Amino acid sequence: MLFGFDATLVFVLNLVGTFAFALSGAMAGVRARLDVFGVLVLAGSVGLAGGIVRDLLIGRPPATFRDERYLFVAVAAGVLACLAHPLLGRLERHVDVFDAAGLAVFCVTGTATAIHFEVDGPAAVLLGAITAIGGGVLRDLFVGEPPTVLRDELYAIPALVGATIVAAPYVHGNHQLLWPILGAATCFTLRLLGIRYRLDLPRPSDWFGAGAR
Amino acid sequence: MLFGFDATLVFVLNLVGTFAFALSGAMAGVRARLDVFGVLVLAGSVGLAGGIVRDLLIGRPPATFRDERYLFVAVAAGVLACLAHPLLGRLERHVDVFDAAGLAVFCVTGTATAIHFEVDGPAAVLLGAITAIGGGVLRDLFVGEPPTVLRDELYAIPALVGATIVAAPYVHGNHQLLWPILGAATCFTLRLLGIRYRLDLPRPSDWFGAGAR
Amino acid sequence: MLFGFDATLVFVLNLVGTFAFALSGAMAGVRARLDVFGVLVLAGSVGLAGGIVRDLLIGRPPATFRDERYLFVAVAAGVLACLAHPLLGRLERHVDVFDAAGLAVFCVTGTATAIHFEVDGPAAVLLGAITAIGGGVLRDLFVGEPPTVLRDELYAIPALVGATIVAAPYVHGNHQLLWPILGAATCFTLRLLGIRYRLDLPRPSDWFGAGAR
Repeated sequence: MLFGFDATLVFVLNLVGTFAFALSGAMAGVRARLDVFGVLVLAGSVGLAGGIVRDLLIGRPPATFRDERYLFVAVAAGVLACLAHPLLGRLERHVDVFDAAGLAVFCVTGTATAIHFEVDGPAAVLLGAITAIGGGVLRDLFVGEPPTVLRDELYAIPALVGATIVAAPYVHGNHQLLWPILGAATCFTLRLLGIRYRLDLPRPSDWFGAGAR
Repeated sequence: MLFGFDATLVFVLNLVGTFAFALSGAMAGVRARLDVFGVLVLAGSVGLAGGIVRDLLIGRPPATFRDERYLFVAVAAGVLACLAHPLLGRLERHVDVFDAAGLAVFCVTGTATAIHFEVDGPAAVLLGAITAIGGGVLRDLFVGEPPTVLRDELYAIPALVGATIVAAPYVHGNHQLLWPILGAATCFTLRLLGIRYRLDLPRPSDWFGAGAR
Repeated sequence: MLFGFDATLVFVLNLVGTFAFALSGAMAGVRARLDVFGVLVLAGSVGLAGGIVRDLLIGRPPATFRDERYLFVAVAAGVLACLAHPLLGRLERHVDVFDAAGLAVFCVTGTATAIHFEVDGPAAVLLGAITAIGGGVLRDLFVGEPPTVLRDELYAIPALVGATIVAAPYVHGNHQLLWPILGAATCFTLRLLGIRYRLDLPRPSDWFGAGAR
């Protein structure tokens, strides 16, 4: 049992997050005018990256290579993007909804997995956030864009908030299913609000007037 | 014993692949007008990257740091590229032959090593392909180009085909030396054919006419 | 006990290196006009990257996630850069002094840690240099610049020299505190001299006249 909910649920959520990030990667590949296989490779890389990084940082061999279903789901997302990208593109025209869904799901499962492997509370939050952010960073580096996590309205903050909502009650002995659900929902909502209302945080480079560098 | 052929052969092939990728990295460094040491660092990074990533994903400490011969071979390739890059440049003018050689050798040894560490068949194919592709991705990111694996005519497909030719017979109990040789040769040939005849795969972004995004 | 000096000293030095690289990353983020949180994420990534990579390559779970003080120090450096970047910017106007300090400290602690984990001498030197260089590479990739280590006057050489000064005496049974101090000081000085006098190494691409590619 992982968390208040069982390992099957965490596994299913990991598949959902893999699918969401793989879709996000595949759509970035379509936009970058990659060929079919480039799109599939990007879908696979982005979908699988978060979980691989998480497992390496926890110190276990990546589960991705012990269970082919992860790869299958990522490739399926890539195929879907190839066949239906005009439709999917309309879905993500306003908000990068697949990326936000992956972020929300992975910040929860990343944190839960880290806690399960006896990582401390604050470090588990950090690991959850890295799991959630990792796929997007790889996607952006691969298509040659600056990482969204550095540039965008509220990206890492939703992941950290979601991870904290998962980790904090658990550390205090509260293992209810409520908290993971609340964590994912909060992360997803914060991220979408950030995009919708362009909630940029202030830039330190603007703080010291024209005299500063 | 690793595979139907012994560990010494796998080791020698790993050195050959390291040398080929290090040459490919060093030549990219010369073209990017790096200084001598930049060329050597790029040779080392690209030559060693594939094996390091493979070992991390399998879950063992990278053999690269347990055996200095890998580093020696990579640096030797870098020195060779510094001294003879006009000659080598002529060799790779038409096809990136060093990259193709590294790809072919590493997809075989990566798959064989993964099988040896009891990774399942399909996952071993994936690990073999990642081993083969890893060095080139790092090279391209370092010199600021989009990863070849995403853009180029047939890059990941030859690696996956080569890895499958290695893994499939093994899983069915056939450990003959024939299969690794056939796998490497097929990968190398497919890659060169892809470059020679510009075998681009179709682009999903072209599939839905002007109305699509 | 790690080296001739105890584990506490190595730990403190690791915190110092983390702080220095996090400052360097945060200042790069301010220059790239990232928002507050982007600056903090870049500070954290750059400050923590070297140690994480080193631990993965040695084959142990990253200490970073077992001890929150690393994260705390990196975030503190990010906050400091947000609040005082005009002042800090003046410090690094002429030389990238934070980056040089991180390089010097991490090449020593990276090598010492690798030796402690029974990595051989030459491989320990390589691991020390990778630890020292890792943070800067990540910083440069994230802000979309070519990695300093490939382009700049004397970057990897100081790290390798510093690591060698640490490793060589140890392998011969000399565990005095002198060597780590000398290693860090030499690395730092070489790096600053390289920047100050623009000590570029020759470029192989210039070696063969106009006839070469």
